[in-house]
Amino acid sequence: MPYVHIQVTRENVSAAQKAELIAGATELLVRVLNKDPATTFVVIEEVDTDNWGVGGIPVTQLRQIQQT
Amino acid sequence: MPYVHIQVTRENVSAAQKAELIAGATELLVRVLNKDPATTFVVIEEVDTDNWGVGGIPVTQLRQIQQT
Amino acid sequence: MPYVHIQVTRENVSAAQKAELIAGATELLVRVLNKDPATTFVVIEEVDTDNWGVGGIPVTQLRQIQQT
Amino acid sequence: MPYVHIQVTRENVSAAQKAELIAGATELLVRVLNKDPATTFVVIEEVDTDNWGVGGIPVTQLRQIQQT
Amino acid sequence: MPYVHIQVTRENVSAAQKAELIAGATELLVRVLNKDPATTFVVIEEVDTDNWGVGGIPVTQLRQIQQT
Amino acid sequence: MPYVHIQVTRENVSAAQKAELIAGATELLVRVLNKDPATTFVVIEEVDTDNWGVGGIPVTQLRQIQQT
Repeated sequence: MPYVHIQVTRENVSAAQKAELIAGATELLVRVLNKDPATTFVVIEEVDTDNWGVGGIPVTQLRQIQQT
Repeated sequence: MPYVHIQVTRENVSAAQKAELIAGATELLVRVLNKDPATTFVVIEEVDTDNWGVGGIPVTQLRQIQQT
Repeated sequence: MPYVHIQVTRENVSAAQKAELIAGATELLVRVLNKDPATTFVVIEEVDTDNWGVGGIPVTQLRQIQQT
Repeated sequence: MPYVHIQVTRENVSAAQKAELIAGATELLVRVLNKDPATTFVVIEEVDTDNWGVGGIPVTQLRQIQQT
Repeated sequence: MPYVHIQVTRENVSAAQKAELIAGATELLVRVLNKDPATTFVVIEEVDTDNWGVGGIPVTQLRQIQQT
Repeated sequence: MPYVHIQVTRENVSAAQKAELIAGATELLVRVLNKDPATTFVVIEEVDTDNWGVGGIPVTQLRQIQQT
């Protein structure tokens, strides 16, 4: 029955990495709470860096600061 | 006042089907809880099949298994 | 595979009404998108009226205005 | 620690407006609850007007009605 | 039409502070995107400190560390 | 920057299990996407079994069926 929603910035997450996140999150719910994988949902949402703010600024600007 | 968030996989949901989901969900809240349609939000989110996991694998792989 | 999240204010929604919302939302996804009920989640979240704002004020205050 | 999720219809929100929403939401949490900006997330989600319903119809249709 | 979801830890947020968050978030959407307050939802969700993790540990433990 | 939201039914999840879910989910994002634990949020939401539906019925009823 668990529903796991993973939000990350849209920064080239590959299909293989998504599959790994899905497998890992499902395994975690099975291991810790003995949940049934067949009814465990994992939904990954990728968010543009303009659309994600931390410290009051968009991640787009944050990345530019980090690269200078 | 209700807010209804419907997440489905991105598998060719047509504009007409979306309108039907919006009408149906709103009607449900009006019928069961006597809510005001004018302040009832329905938000449909379509998720790539790489990004939705069930049974520990992405729906993309699940669909491939289902087709073999 | 659908996940339906219904947020309403915490104003005495009965167990029977919740069951009706669950049945109705599931039936809607089956009818419109031919989804499998066995892997259709409906999650109802009740929110205190102090915690829900519309028109810039909490619903608690809105209800008081509506009753005067 | 706060997480602020802002959903709006996808109707040409500019990068500058997104930055303003991020700054404003962060400032609000700092001012009212004395939260640390460095661990305050603001996530903006833009939703197609076909995918957002109010009053039982998609915003796409609502906009057409508003323009006639 | 905006929907703003604010998640914070359950650490004695007063009704007055919630009203201030609701007013501030609504004003922000009106000012930046010219949205209608009457159809702007703000939902505040308070999360137990056992249920919120940052840095891999629950906030409950984090607060204990911060107090030593 | 990741935000992980884990929804499970409210069925006696202990503080230790919550801490394990938080540690496990954080470790997963660090391992797969090399994210910074200090800015990785994990939020666990427990949902009453009356409020969670699968197969068109509340989990409360499902558990009763499973026990007969």
